[in-house]
Amino acid sequence: MSDFPVSLLKGYEDFMSGRYVEESGRYRSLAEKGQKPHTLMIACCDSRAAPETIFNCGPGELFVVRNVANLVPPYEPDGQFHATSAALEYAVQALKIRDIVVMGHGRCGGIQAALDPMDEPLSPGDFIGKWMGMLRSTADQIPSTEIMTQSERQTALERVSIRNSIANLKTFPCIRILEEKGSMRIHGAWFDISTGELWVMDGKTGDFIRPQA
Amino acid sequence: MSDFPVSLLKGYEDFMSGRYVEESGRYRSLAEKGQKPHTLMIACCDSRAAPETIFNCGPGELFVVRNVANLVPPYEPDGQFHATSAALEYAVQALKIRDIVVMGHGRCGGIQAALDPMDEPLSPGDFIGKWMGMLRSTADQIPSTEIMTQSERQTALERVSIRNSIANLKTFPCIRILEEKGSMRIHGAWFDISTGELWVMDGKTGDFIRPQA
Amino acid sequence: MSDFPVSLLKGYEDFMSGRYVEESGRYRSLAEKGQKPHTLMIACCDSRAAPETIFNCGPGELFVVRNVANLVPPYEPDGQFHATSAALEYAVQALKIRDIVVMGHGRCGGIQAALDPMDEPLSPGDFIGKWMGMLRSTADQIPSTEIMTQSERQTALERVSIRNSIANLKTFPCIRILEEKGSMRIHGAWFDISTGELWVMDGKTGDFIRPQA
Amino acid sequence: MSDFPVSLLKGYEDFMSGRYVEESGRYRSLAEKGQKPHTLMIACCDSRAAPETIFNCGPGELFVVRNVANLVPPYEPDGQFHATSAALEYAVQALKIRDIVVMGHGRCGGIQAALDPMDEPLSPGDFIGKWMGMLRSTADQIPSTEIMTQSERQTALERVSIRNSIANLKTFPCIRILEEKGSMRIHGAWFDISTGELWVMDGKTGDFIRPQA
Repeated sequence: MSDFPVSLLKGYEDFMSGRYVEESGRYRSLAEKGQKPHTLMIACCDSRAAPETIFNCGPGELFVVRNVANLVPPYEPDGQFHATSAALEYAVQALKIRDIVVMGHGRCGGIQAALDPMDEPLSPGDFIGKWMGMLRSTADQIPSTEIMTQSERQTALERVSIRNSIANLKTFPCIRILEEKGSMRIHGAWFDISTGELWVMDGKTGDFIRPQA
Repeated sequence: MSDFPVSLLKGYEDFMSGRYVEESGRYRSLAEKGQKPHTLMIACCDSRAAPETIFNCGPGELFVVRNVANLVPPYEPDGQFHATSAALEYAVQALKIRDIVVMGHGRCGGIQAALDPMDEPLSPGDFIGKWMGMLRSTADQIPSTEIMTQSERQTALERVSIRNSIANLKTFPCIRILEEKGSMRIHGAWFDISTGELWVMDGKTGDFIRPQA
Repeated sequence: MSDFPVSLLKGYEDFMSGRYVEESGRYRSLAEKGQKPHTLMIACCDSRAAPETIFNCGPGELFVVRNVANLVPPYEPDGQFHATSAALEYAVQALKIRDIVVMGHGRCGGIQAALDPMDEPLSPGDFIGKWMGMLRSTADQIPSTEIMTQSERQTALERVSIRNSIANLKTFPCIRILEEKGSMRIHGAWFDISTGELWVMDGKTGDFIRPQA
Repeated sequence: MSDFPVSLLKGYEDFMSGRYVEESGRYRSLAEKGQKPHTLMIACCDSRAAPETIFNCGPGELFVVRNVANLVPPYEPDGQFHATSAALEYAVQALKIRDIVVMGHGRCGGIQAALDPMDEPLSPGDFIGKWMGMLRSTADQIPSTEIMTQSERQTALERVSIRNSIANLKTFPCIRILEEKGSMRIHGAWFDISTGELWVMDGKTGDFIRPQA
């Protein structure tokens, strides 16, 4: 007898008696033929910003990396375990995905931690401190609350961070080469949890704008 | 004018005119009060195994890490960037999540790569090779295709890997301490993409079983 | 006065006053015309896996060999008594049966003995040890309990053993020749005692799958 | 997609929607607690003489060996594979079964082959010829058709053979010792396929008689 959370089992039953009924053929076909997702989505772990929900995507559409604050680290071909780089490599080289979206969102706890580091690490390992340290030098350049409101600072770093991750993406040789050949497209997006608004990045200027209907 | 993928913009419009209409209040409330997800889900990037879909979860329910093959590396408090460990720490220490699910699935490309490593890495960085190298010594103990079919070997390693990740979870002091105090529950789950079946791990034996209806 | 077990006599009376009333004509006809079973079933002695029960078969349908762990030994045309080979020969050559099913099941005591041989034989003759020795080299390749749970190891060997028996079946010239001519079909099946689920072997891959409804 | 015989799949569905509905608890309990059958039945492969049917037994009651002509070979502790001896040993030593029934039946093809050996073996391996050779010297003592009808000769050898197997059973040390201590009971039975009559052996005289109602 398992002690698996009852709420999840209930949700699974709803899935099976609901959505799965219509999509069972699609699942079976995706199992037999393998996945061929159109987009690699680099998103945040945040429970309020699930990409499949926001983009209304079904099985087989999005290959999704989720880490704290949707960060892409720079290319570092050392001997370490690199969760995000491994997913990138698999998506681009094995699955041949040619659209990448770095998707941030408002009120991101990770960005907040980068902006205003705690005096004490959350745990002795200080993994969040180190992970968000990727943004340290950038965060240091966001003006203080004497200049910008706390909310403005947060949104600013959320967006700077997306551009930062896109720059890091381009340090990966396989991505840079494909993009230079015009066969790879990299996009930025920012989701406002409070209002449901989606903002997408203008590839030329880096600005975040409301997409045209 | 953005070159943001049209299919994603279309999906977003469907979200806004559909699900969001009913859930706008919930999003607004989650923005104001912050997230309080009940479960940390460590899942795979695979486009066919989105946790929110399979467990029919709405905004605010699941804090989701997604990496290739839903792996948890062992506790390594060094100076590196650790995407998964950072998410763990944030979930447990900042969000106070007390249920963790490691969720694997059938036909996982990462597990396949661990089982039968390619002669040539996917790219010079060989990130997938290094990432799945976490399972190398375990994968070496799965019998060859002379004994088990390729599909059986794959399922076996998928499940072994979940137990492996759960063992690694318990190397994190903050998790081990909470579990020993009885205030942290760690679960395993395995989703069969082909049939939609969910199998959950029996915490005592480690076996994967169909949950009782 | 016989000391024949009363429970069996009671069961026989139930058979005569129940099922036999409807099937007496069929028994009489089968006695006069001889049997013409459609399937040779190689099954286990286990009291929980009777083929006639599980496949709801009546008199005249199944020619059934039952030995410990439903094993088929390899073709050995020596001077010994070979219970299983004799039954095979009779089924194929005298009765002209053209469908053979090797039917295993979960929690098989014989397979368990092959997986984890006892230090002491059950009796000085050690017949079980020798009989299950047929699987020794295969069993040695199943990973230890450090990698797979005891239940997973057991299911794995149960299924490997069915494929093994099917391979041995094909070492019998009369079977091999008929199969090559396309007039003999060999099948594998595995019955889950706990749930009643039947899994059948995919002839191409050797995988065990739930039959399509 | 499996090519598993459709008639068997249909029978399985009937089992699942019929008998299994009532007995699912019993199967689950037998899986969890293990089998504890009351009787070891040594029966024939013949499709017309399934013990579970004739004795109306449910799951968990009978541990069943089925070979051609329900023979028990003499105790031979050599290095060979002995299907029947292995099952005996497992039933008596591991399962502690204390009632053994050797069950023969009318119109047995194996007995017929022992009575009137074919000029040519069924196949070059001649497994049936060797297997039924166990009865050769006994069969040679059955009078010719000048004295007894063919049907009388056949029934005679069927019954002689049951007594023969019972004598062989007692060459197994573990059985002989238990029987001498009075804690093992060995029975003979003979089923008339044509009429459905059951005859049981009188332990003292060896005669086959109709059991008292």
